[in-house]
Amino acid sequence: MQEERLQKQITFIKEIDKLKLILRKTKLICTDRNENDAEHSWHLAMMTIILAEHSNTTIDVLKVLKMVLIHDIVEIDTGDIFYFDADQSHSNFDKEFLAAKRIFGLLPEDQAEEFIAIWREFEEGESKEAKFARSVDRFEPVLQNTSNHGGTWAEFNLSYPTIHNKLQVIEKGSIAIWDFAKKLISETLKKGYIKN
Amino acid sequence: MQEERLQKQITFIKEIDKLKLILRKTKLICTDRNENDAEHSWHLAMMTIILAEHSNTTIDVLKVLKMVLIHDIVEIDTGDIFYFDADQSHSNFDKEFLAAKRIFGLLPEDQAEEFIAIWREFEEGESKEAKFARSVDRFEPVLQNTSNHGGTWAEFNLSYPTIHNKLQVIEKGSIAIWDFAKKLISETLKKGYIKN
Repeated sequence: MQEERLQKQITFIKEIDKLKLILRKTKLICTDRNENDAEHSWHLAMMTIILAEHSNTTIDVLKVLKMVLIHDIVEIDTGDIFYFDADQSHSNFDKEFLAAKRIFGLLPEDQAEEFIAIWREFEEGESKEAKFARSVDRFEPVLQNTSNHGGTWAEFNLSYPTIHNKLQVIEKGSIAIWDFAKKLISETLKKGYIKN
Repeated sequence: MQEERLQKQITFIKEIDKLKLILRKTKLICTDRNENDAEHSWHLAMMTIILAEHSNTTIDVLKVLKMVLIHDIVEIDTGDIFYFDADQSHSNFDKEFLAAKRIFGLLPEDQAEEFIAIWREFEEGESKEAKFARSVDRFEPVLQNTSNHGGTWAEFNLSYPTIHNKLQVIEKGSIAIWDFAKKLISETLKKGYIKN
């Protein structure tokens, strides 16, 4: 029984190795190499541990860690969608839900159910843990783009108001982090890397 | 005060982006691409969440997650040491301790102290959390090498007894995981990818 359970868990653990091959649009700080989903998820986990104290409300850190560690696993099947691509962002939920059922479904049933529920909670963005997880998910590319002469914002010719409005969701998880992010975005505007 | 604290935390968060550029000897499953330390750490975090139930003793999962997420950060300064390189593995602690003080020292003092303590606990390998964290750290390359025709074991011409003896440390964290690992290593021997 334990062996059968372990076999399912190992099958899942091997399957998710593929997340290391899913590339995001964003580049690593001061390099020209695209970030992949696995290392991105690691970075969000580190940010969660370090920045949890700035959350607007007290949060269950272990739950947020689970959220950020698994939030992109569906992209093994669907690929990465650029956050500023409004059309695709909206039509993608059904595909992602199928992916969640297939990939998390490799786990023993209780763990599959737990992971699908946590992934949905992150996607819905309503719980205090989901709000904080989404804050760090949006804040990481701010650190990368503002270190890379505007990064993907400059590359896709996004204006300051577009960036500001789309990233304001950071505030729902942490006013302090959003205040910091706004300063970084403004500096990037002043340096001329993005347009007004 | 909060802003000064946040500035230090962001400096650290940006610094550790470099972990994504530190390459390990091990290759990803079914590819010829070397794994990097950040995606490796993500994978260990996932394994911790999924496999914690197989630990020999009850463990504090949040503490193990912190351990596996930060355990390789010192390699930003020291580089990766191959686990089977006995000479370097033994002489490296002083260099790694300097690296820990420099990198974790970027954080506010209380967080720097906490991270250095957790990193040392992992290195010492004596607590039940450290034992489990080291089990998953040693088990991940088992999954990769046994999926890659012997992987680094074959590449560096390591024999079955060498591999078996060096990896037996997995047992200290989880007898169930070690039993599973032994089967995988034996299968790889039977297939002729490693010598006896």
